[in-house]
Amino acid sequence: MRNTPGIAGRVFHSLGKNGINITAIAQGSSELNISMVINRKDELKALNSLHLNFFEFKNIPVNLFLAGTGNVGSELLHQIKAQSDFLSKHLKVSLRIAGLANSRKMLFSEKGLNLSDPLRTLGDTGRCYEPAEFLEKMRSLNLPNSVYVDCTASDEIPRNYLSVLKSGISVVTPNKRANSGSFKYYSGLKVQAEKAAVKYLYETNVGAGLPIISTIRNLIISGDEIIKIEGILSGTLSYIFNNLSPLDTFSGIVNYAKSLGYTEPDPREDLSGLDVARKLLILIRETGIRFEMRGIRINRLLPKKLMESQSTDEFMDKLKEVDTYFEKMRKKAEDSGTILKFIARYESGKASIGLEPVSSVHPFYRLEGTTNAVALTTRRYRSSPLIISGPGAGADVTAAGVLGDILKTVNL
Amino acid sequence: MRNTPGIAGRVFHSLGKNGINITAIAQGSSELNISMVINRKDELKALNSLHLNFFEFKNIPVNLFLAGTGNVGSELLHQIKAQSDFLSKHLKVSLRIAGLANSRKMLFSEKGLNLSDPLRTLGDTGRCYEPAEFLEKMRSLNLPNSVYVDCTASDEIPRNYLSVLKSGISVVTPNKRANSGSFKYYSGLKVQAEKAAVKYLYETNVGAGLPIISTIRNLIISGDEIIKIEGILSGTLSYIFNNLSPLDTFSGIVNYAKSLGYTEPDPREDLSGLDVARKLLILIRETGIRFEMRGIRINRLLPKKLMESQSTDEFMDKLKEVDTYFEKMRKKAEDSGTILKFIARYESGKASIGLEPVSSVHPFYRLEGTTNAVALTTRRYRSSPLIISGPGAGADVTAAGVLGDILKTVNL
Repeated sequence: MRNTPGIAGRVFHSLGKNGINITAIAQGSSELNISMVINRKDELKALNSLHLNFFEFKNIPVNLFLAGTGNVGSELLHQIKAQSDFLSKHLKVSLRIAGLANSRKMLFSEKGLNLSDPLRTLGDTGRCYEPAEFLEKMRSLNLPNSVYVDCTASDEIPRNYLSVLKSGISVVTPNKRANSGSFKYYSGLKVQAEKAAVKYLYETNVGAGLPIISTIRNLIISGDEIIKIEGILSGTLSYIFNNLSPLDTFSGIVNYAKSLGYTEPDPREDLSGLDVARKLLILIRETGIRFEMRGIRINRLLPKKLMESQSTDEFMDKLKEVDTYFEKMRKKAEDSGTILKFIARYESGKASIGLEPVSSVHPFYRLEGTTNAVALTTRRYRSSPLIISGPGAGADVTAAGVLGDILKTVNL
Repeated sequence: MRNTPGIAGRVFHSLGKNGINITAIAQGSSELNISMVINRKDELKALNSLHLNFFEFKNIPVNLFLAGTGNVGSELLHQIKAQSDFLSKHLKVSLRIAGLANSRKMLFSEKGLNLSDPLRTLGDTGRCYEPAEFLEKMRSLNLPNSVYVDCTASDEIPRNYLSVLKSGISVVTPNKRANSGSFKYYSGLKVQAEKAAVKYLYETNVGAGLPIISTIRNLIISGDEIIKIEGILSGTLSYIFNNLSPLDTFSGIVNYAKSLGYTEPDPREDLSGLDVARKLLILIRETGIRFEMRGIRINRLLPKKLMESQSTDEFMDKLKEVDTYFEKMRKKAEDSGTILKFIARYESGKASIGLEPVSSVHPFYRLEGTTNAVALTTRRYRSSPLIISGPGAGADVTAAGVLGDILKTVNL
């Protein structure tokens, strides 16, 4: 091969970036050969890296190991397939599904699965899913630019992030569990990602595809200070309180929202506010503050007794009991020119979630439908806040956000 | 040095990334020495890269060549100084001012200028500014991770971006000129940046520190399609129409805004809408559409004759003549439950800027002060748009956006 300027650089860049340790190397001044000694375990990875650099050097391969084939995971597969030509042409990136798993089966392909119907391939040819084996195979394949994409709602899988990052594999996920557990685990992941020079990205933890976490990050690194965070962080609760009226009772709206699929199968999961609290916790932590869940004051929406109903059906039946209460609250707010919104709030070290009356000058007053919104009041955005709003849930926008994070694992 | 895993990789990564071509290299298996043959011109750069990697390897140096020491440039210098410890600790990045210039003087420092009072140092010890010499010196210094930061409002400087990118130097700028000229030049810059594996970033071209351009980019790469762009893209025009009332005449508000420094010294620059048109053009291009300025319909705010007044004073004097017209317009809008806003719009291939009545359900209805806003209706954000709003001007938020872009030139 001709030693045009930058070619040798690209070889070393490629091997270095993929963590391949070169024991000895020699290149003749004839520029016709390069010899090197590397560890046997890195042989294939080095060969692939070099091959990719010299023969397909227009495309950077990104090898995805996707766990979870539910709404978000399968939509992500669709988007990757649909965007493959665009990403190859405009970003010189080639996304490959090197591993795919759901709770039943798993499948690997060093060259990347055929994307015409990967879920069917998984069902037909996958072997029994073994979590430890999936991780082990991902490590032993040792492919360049590996990314572990967790599209599950699992509590278990996030516990593996630390060891995955330690192996030099990036982690991208919409799963909130790792970031809303202990601060120690959250910050440990960030430190580990930095040490291993890989990425840990989770933009979709809050507001799905809305650029909320990256915006906070950019404010902080440029030296801005967050004075106040206000958020409508649940599409479900946003929908309920945007629609409360003398004609639409609380229980009626919850029932309707449930029938539209806007709520979890058991709407108590939304109404508990726990998911909102998790998101607020993550936003607070992203500002650089050490914070734990117990620091968030949760102003309960519903009586404890009601929430502890034996079944979803019993709960839905009993929900009518609170209609009068919510209508009174709504009327009282209306009489003072305000509207009730379920707001996550952080200000002066204090965090809370709960129902608040907002007046017509508040940026959240006009929100409609299932819209999410975050208003950031900072030292620089003080006279009026920086606001990001829009649909903050849904498989399509979530998968798009995950895809955006995947592309950020390589420097485009 | 000990050959711990990844160290050799880091050497090659570092040299490769900085475009240093290695003619021959030999590393003994004793792991105590590495010898290599490189081009003499790269000697210092290689030495620096390696030194930085092994002895200060916790920090990636980013060498800035800053042109322009006005509001934004000097605020950027402040922010870099103030954030230096944070960036070093949390991002392992060390920002250095390797070159500094304004229209009078220029100064270079391979190790980075002392940031205690760089403008004074420039004034006291800088030599006469010669544009060609500045570029030549920037190239010949050949420092790793070089970034040319154009904080001028110059028409001339953007003409150099192409050759700067070609030299393997990233370009970061709030200057809109290069992106609002011919589509050919705009797209040429993007292609060149990609070819040279450097960055061309300009988030602050629209909405200052608001994450508008990066959001459009993320939507596009994930395969979303932009159906409609609506924007309030001028803080000045936002302020004027947010304050129009029976008590506050058009000319009165323009005068007041001028006295607050919200307008250009000659307010006609704001009132012409040209700046808004430039921003709209950039947003349209960012969606991937080939578009030229002549494709934007500019609905004039003021009569041509008034705009052609001989002087700013004459213009300001005559401005009273249009007060009745704007009050009529305002009243008419009010009577139909709407408010006038100066909107940049792109929809179905058609682009326009001009005054539009917006109703109370429109996301721009409640905007106040000098707020900027962009509403993106896309295939995925269709039921309600993705909206980003907030103060869209000011040296502090603009410099913060520039700093964010600078940090994106290295993969953090």
